[in-house]
Amino acid sequence: MATKQKILIDCDPGHDDAVAILYAHRHMDLVGVTTVHGNNSLENTTRNALAVVEMGRIDVPVAAGCAEPLAQVPVGIAAMHGKSGLDGADIPDPTRTVIGTHAVDFIIAMAEKHKGELILATIGPETNIAMALRREPRLKQWIREIAVMGGSTTLGNITPAAEFNIFADVEAAWAVYESGIPIRMVGYNITRQTGFDQGDIDRMRASGRKVASVLADLMAFYLEKQRVGYGLNVAPMHDVCAIIPYIDPTLIDYVHTSARIELTGTYTRGMTVCDLRTLMNSQAINMRHATPANAHVAVAARSRALIDQVVDTLLTYD
Amino acid sequence: MATKQKILIDCDPGHDDAVAILYAHRHMDLVGVTTVHGNNSLENTTRNALAVVEMGRIDVPVAAGCAEPLAQVPVGIAAMHGKSGLDGADIPDPTRTVIGTHAVDFIIAMAEKHKGELILATIGPETNIAMALRREPRLKQWIREIAVMGGSTTLGNITPAAEFNIFADVEAAWAVYESGIPIRMVGYNITRQTGFDQGDIDRMRASGRKVASVLADLMAFYLEKQRVGYGLNVAPMHDVCAIIPYIDPTLIDYVHTSARIELTGTYTRGMTVCDLRTLMNSQAINMRHATPANAHVAVAARSRALIDQVVDTLLTYD
Amino acid sequence: MATKQKILIDCDPGHDDAVAILYAHRHMDLVGVTTVHGNNSLENTTRNALAVVEMGRIDVPVAAGCAEPLAQVPVGIAAMHGKSGLDGADIPDPTRTVIGTHAVDFIIAMAEKHKGELILATIGPETNIAMALRREPRLKQWIREIAVMGGSTTLGNITPAAEFNIFADVEAAWAVYESGIPIRMVGYNITRQTGFDQGDIDRMRASGRKVASVLADLMAFYLEKQRVGYGLNVAPMHDVCAIIPYIDPTLIDYVHTSARIELTGTYTRGMTVCDLRTLMNSQAINMRHATPANAHVAVAARSRALIDQVVDTLLTYD
Amino acid sequence: MATKQKILIDCDPGHDDAVAILYAHRHMDLVGVTTVHGNNSLENTTRNALAVVEMGRIDVPVAAGCAEPLAQVPVGIAAMHGKSGLDGADIPDPTRTVIGTHAVDFIIAMAEKHKGELILATIGPETNIAMALRREPRLKQWIREIAVMGGSTTLGNITPAAEFNIFADVEAAWAVYESGIPIRMVGYNITRQTGFDQGDIDRMRASGRKVASVLADLMAFYLEKQRVGYGLNVAPMHDVCAIIPYIDPTLIDYVHTSARIELTGTYTRGMTVCDLRTLMNSQAINMRHATPANAHVAVAARSRALIDQVVDTLLTYD
Repeated sequence: MATKQKILIDCDPGHDDAVAILYAHRHMDLVGVTTVHGNNSLENTTRNALAVVEMGRIDVPVAAGCAEPLAQVPVGIAAMHGKSGLDGADIPDPTRTVIGTHAVDFIIAMAEKHKGELILATIGPETNIAMALRREPRLKQWIREIAVMGGSTTLGNITPAAEFNIFADVEAAWAVYESGIPIRMVGYNITRQTGFDQGDIDRMRASGRKVASVLADLMAFYLEKQRVGYGLNVAPMHDVCAIIPYIDPTLIDYVHTSARIELTGTYTRGMTVCDLRTLMNSQAINMRHATPANAHVAVAARSRALIDQVVDTLLTYD
Repeated sequence: MATKQKILIDCDPGHDDAVAILYAHRHMDLVGVTTVHGNNSLENTTRNALAVVEMGRIDVPVAAGCAEPLAQVPVGIAAMHGKSGLDGADIPDPTRTVIGTHAVDFIIAMAEKHKGELILATIGPETNIAMALRREPRLKQWIREIAVMGGSTTLGNITPAAEFNIFADVEAAWAVYESGIPIRMVGYNITRQTGFDQGDIDRMRASGRKVASVLADLMAFYLEKQRVGYGLNVAPMHDVCAIIPYIDPTLIDYVHTSARIELTGTYTRGMTVCDLRTLMNSQAINMRHATPANAHVAVAARSRALIDQVVDTLLTYD
Repeated sequence: MATKQKILIDCDPGHDDAVAILYAHRHMDLVGVTTVHGNNSLENTTRNALAVVEMGRIDVPVAAGCAEPLAQVPVGIAAMHGKSGLDGADIPDPTRTVIGTHAVDFIIAMAEKHKGELILATIGPETNIAMALRREPRLKQWIREIAVMGGSTTLGNITPAAEFNIFADVEAAWAVYESGIPIRMVGYNITRQTGFDQGDIDRMRASGRKVASVLADLMAFYLEKQRVGYGLNVAPMHDVCAIIPYIDPTLIDYVHTSARIELTGTYTRGMTVCDLRTLMNSQAINMRHATPANAHVAVAARSRALIDQVVDTLLTYD
Repeated sequence: MATKQKILIDCDPGHDDAVAILYAHRHMDLVGVTTVHGNNSLENTTRNALAVVEMGRIDVPVAAGCAEPLAQVPVGIAAMHGKSGLDGADIPDPTRTVIGTHAVDFIIAMAEKHKGELILATIGPETNIAMALRREPRLKQWIREIAVMGGSTTLGNITPAAEFNIFADVEAAWAVYESGIPIRMVGYNITRQTGFDQGDIDRMRASGRKVASVLADLMAFYLEKQRVGYGLNVAPMHDVCAIIPYIDPTLIDYVHTSARIELTGTYTRGMTVCDLRTLMNSQAINMRHATPANAHVAVAARSRALIDQVVDTLLTYD
């Protein structure tokens, strides 16, 4: 039997973060969960992370991280996830607690322990990762790849051009994208349309399983928010899209190109500027203002098949 | 018989500019052609404009305009169009000459003469239009609509985020987009895939008509450049896309939204930031960082039908 | 007898503009006055310019120019000069009128007529100059020097870092400073402390002369505004400082250095970034991030002597 | 006897850093020294810090911190200090070593231990302080004041507008200046002219004392660099200027005003934009574009008296 891929998830749960954790635990060697400000306050995202691992009976350390972005005014919470950051179901307060180690130190320790083997999945603002990079420059050699849910090749959500996770800590995202560590980015261009529809929610509820039922309640809340807020008819599963390619690489197509973080635009701060001019022809030669490739950027997905796999996995929980 | 729509074309020919002029003349009341730096030097774009109207035996004044952008270093010529700005055919030097009036004054004079009726089509850098707006503030009341070929809702060409015409004079574009005059923008997202393929070129050549034969030579050159430079299998007819909607409004779909010119980004200067977050649902309510609608932005085109109409028109020239 | 230096003044009167015009006329060959938005609306600055030349019985053409900045939202009027832009005295409406030529065209015509000989003094926002540069690129060869009242080597007035004239049209200033025409800049660092004190006003009033009496009333109003607004005990004669060096070069000291216009800062847009690191030692060699010298920048003034010369000149008017 | 002021020095020695440490130890309760990249690599600044405390027989923990700026490309070392960062004397390699705690953690620990009492002096790039603020938000309540050597009210050194320490980590400086902790800033406007001249160096050498002799060698090297590089006739003692006001508040004058870090300018990135418009009159009311006061900014110094005190102190070392 093949060794499972080691992964550490840095997150801000969040409905879709919860699904990403549950999915990763079933398929990968999840070495830890770290939390960060983002969809909600650090206090709430940390409580939600603990509640999710408890619900999934996932035996994994949870470490709390940074409460504020590196060098910007906080952008405020994401309305999509409700007041608690994980509204929609009656989830009991977790009995588990975070470990005594700060998320930044825990990330560094895991990266050192699993040198060259660890995927670091960042599915919230990238503050913890940037802090870890500055505290321990050797992290650049230790991490195998950073899996990013963030940014967009086209449309933003928090602004016309920027996606929430990047916008919530733009300088941190810059530090990550310029770190030299391979980046595998799936953005809002993909995840916006890759989500649970009403049928998926019905299927989870009809299963009669406890975890699936709670998830059905959560996702019904989240779908309604997306419907009213963005006119979407799916509840986007942004975060799991960053993880699933390590299990089934056929579900999402990537191009290897330059993806840069815009720090300074009037309307574009926080945009991930992906150079897709070569999308049709990698032999194209007329690319002015090009910069070196630093990321694999998702450009297409088999959304229905992807979501089916996710639901299948969630139904394996009791 | 209905009165023809009055139009003034401000351009930098350019292969696709030539087609736009020839198309407009057949269907509309073309009150003049003004020239600007862009695809090539002002000297060359002006000579090319004169050559085109002479080739089409179009009896219209041509006025020369500005040779440099408002407030930036010139970006250099567009390699796509060759050394002369209109390479590929042996076009004789024009015998016609420009009128004595500067393009900026001519634009103002035509706008005053045709108050409320004139479409001002800007299919090169927008320097002349911005200059006219500052010289005569009443232009804002006089112009019916500004038809822009420029920008993109997604991918750029000159940079990953910016399209050439906007990038070639970003401050001028800002002045136009913020003028309050209705904007009808068709960008590179549409025009990149709306062009002549080899079959169209063959059809023009096979017609045996003189103008069509010259165009076939021009377009064969241009198609080859696009193939090598961008990996495209069509020769994009960027400019005519800005004009054709006034003749056949069914060919391009627009959304009415905010389109802002980014002046200051590190990677995004010259980007047209179009807010397409409401594309799916105009009732969406969660639009943070939204600004008022100022433009109709093209989001889809029937490219094949559009190009067929253009070729049909070009074949009406002897 | 030496030929008088030819000068054209582009201005936005304004109390200190009025003094600059009156001073220039007595000492130089003033070939014209052009007006621009700035301290007040174009309508008001033009009326004020006409009133000033009428008051001084100066036989010179006045041409109206641009009412708005090139590529920014207008900053609003300067409170220092009151509602009319020239408050404080009961000045009759001028009977003179502007010439039929636009200021931009007039500037170009005068520059062509006096090739290589003309000083172009810009003592308001630089919109007209930038427009002229873009309309007639040969202006760069025709103008001897541009005398700028604007910017600062240190402290701003309209913002902590920016001076009003530059801030009121930043892109225009960029176009002027990057034009290659020699720039002689006197900024707020000098002009803030170079002005009429109460004694100067008393001296003008005591003269019994008509023009001086009106000026005394104007300057009393302006001094009070400066006292309340900036805590100054002089009424700064910003604009005349740009002109007086051509008459008496001993009054202001300059360094030849790089002066760049900041277009993009969050707090520094409109700043004139003058490289004074070599001020003490032109042989200094450790200048990182240096750019070529494009301006003579005023760094010190004999303010009392300068103002005395100005008052002396004003008292020559009846 | 009064309790000595507790201080922690975060530094990048550096000639003037060395003097600041030696000065502080004699007059204050120096609870620790932390090191950061800046004048030289972290490795070298840390070795230099250890060498300085060993030379001064100062019994204080030294903790190493961050090697790179938060979110920018490193700017490279400061040529002024030579290859080692402390060239000019033959200083033996230190036998002491850093403590096992990271500088960021040590800063947090000391701030918690000495709640409300600790001055945090940052005399290099502010990376460690920013990292500490993000790791422990309560730091904002714990620190009494941050003493900054950095920035300038006028002239920069590394660029025309920016001073080295701020420019070397602009985002970190932003985080510090926007933290809400009181800032006491002394910038290059003061420190450029506050330094050892040849007489001071001679006096140290003539003393026959060992530490003073080594310092004389160091400062002779540094003075020569400043002479050639900037045309200065003093070796600026930048860093001690941030510390001395806590011992003798009469030596430097401050204004309480807004000091903002420019993140985005083309020519002004890294500038400390200090609003000195009210310098002459705190009752001034016409301050447009003003922001709240967050710093005491040094605007004048008794440089000779200050340097005399510093030399006196240095001569107390054996």
